[in-house]
Amino acid sequence: MFPLFAEEVKGKQVMVIDILRATTSMVVMLENGAQKVIPVAKVEEALAMKALADEQGRAICIAGERNGIKVDGFDFGNSPQEFTSDAVAGKEVVITTTNGTHALDLSKSGSHVWVGGFLNLSLSAAAIAAALNDVYLFCAGWKGHFNLEDTLFAGALAEELLALGGEIGDDATRAALAIWKKAKPNPAEFLSDASHVQRFQTMHATSDLEVCLQINTSKKAVKYENGELVAIPS
Amino acid sequence: MFPLFAEEVKGKQVMVIDILRATTSMVVMLENGAQKVIPVAKVEEALAMKALADEQGRAICIAGERNGIKVDGFDFGNSPQEFTSDAVAGKEVVITTTNGTHALDLSKSGSHVWVGGFLNLSLSAAAIAAALNDVYLFCAGWKGHFNLEDTLFAGALAEELLALGGEIGDDATRAALAIWKKAKPNPAEFLSDASHVQRFQTMHATSDLEVCLQINTSKKAVKYENGELVAIPS
Repeated sequence: MFPLFAEEVKGKQVMVIDILRATTSMVVMLENGAQKVIPVAKVEEALAMKALADEQGRAICIAGERNGIKVDGFDFGNSPQEFTSDAVAGKEVVITTTNGTHALDLSKSGSHVWVGGFLNLSLSAAAIAAALNDVYLFCAGWKGHFNLEDTLFAGALAEELLALGGEIGDDATRAALAIWKKAKPNPAEFLSDASHVQRFQTMHATSDLEVCLQINTSKKAVKYENGELVAIPS
Repeated sequence: MFPLFAEEVKGKQVMVIDILRATTSMVVMLENGAQKVIPVAKVEEALAMKALADEQGRAICIAGERNGIKVDGFDFGNSPQEFTSDAVAGKEVVITTTNGTHALDLSKSGSHVWVGGFLNLSLSAAAIAAALNDVYLFCAGWKGHFNLEDTLFAGALAEELLALGGEIGDDATRAALAIWKKAKPNPAEFLSDASHVQRFQTMHATSDLEVCLQINTSKKAVKYENGELVAIPS
């Protein structure tokens, strides 16, 4: 399926969704003033970029996880709570994550590639609607498997796009919307027995989950272009 | 993903789901007294089996569709309403369909391979629960894409298995259950804007849809073994 995806999204928009926590953290970094955010697929790439920046005297920090755990030698893991203004404002941040970075790489043939989370839900919907063409809602999932939190966000975004005059194009989106409508009164409770959330809660502060489910707290839409994440408005 | 599926289901049960209409029709054939039902992947195989049976003087009929349309030279298409007792009792039926037969082929390494629909929902749940090991709910979908009606049935079956003491093992099943709970008061209405149902209604009698959504009208569970579908009890 994956080689075909790049063909399928040519000329279309893609929204890359990895709510816990990659795309949420990416939005937070830009919200809090990171100068640029560069997602890379491999740990080695991140370490090499850090070494080069140190040599050139540029301020850079590297962030990321493998299997949900901060990588040895990195400045940060992947918790949105780490990326405060103090930590990232004015800096380059390189990030590599298990699923989110891979999803971005698969999406790069799209006409517009967006990165979003609940915290920039309505701004993301507005940015997508403004571009007018079709959008794929790409749920990164967990190691190739379906997960519930990314699907919830896809449903929430579909609801916003419908309100902006969009139409639903397939059954997967209809299903995501139905799930979102059921979960909307209390998303955290709805997710409480989801597999990734259970895995998550054994590894991280539950406060991370709360941050990832906050709605419209950010003022930035986030676009991926030329290998970098860019805040809109910048 | 498909080559891995055969590995993943070894030693586990699989329920193959293609509500509109392959697995529904398979259950109807056995319910109405077909002596045996043989699913095959290719139109040519079905035609060759018919030619051989004619030569040997055996009563056989061949059924199936491609892209939802009855195959030229076949006795039947894939409407459950075609497979009356008059049409199939005491006969061998060979069936080939776009998605359902392919899904069976992918599932054959399972410990038990079941075929079901709403019409044998509770009997299927009981048969799965009796075997005690894990079950994959394999939604055949439409040409590799998610569809809503198969997911609804997966959710309905999950609900029955939970009531029989089962546990849900992944988020996809949790999502299917959430969708089913939303759709349960009126599945036909819930499905009315689903893509396959729309495609379906332009091609077939809406009465087919009604038949495919009838719950527990059949007295047979259906098992796939040694290349044949078998009714339980026979």
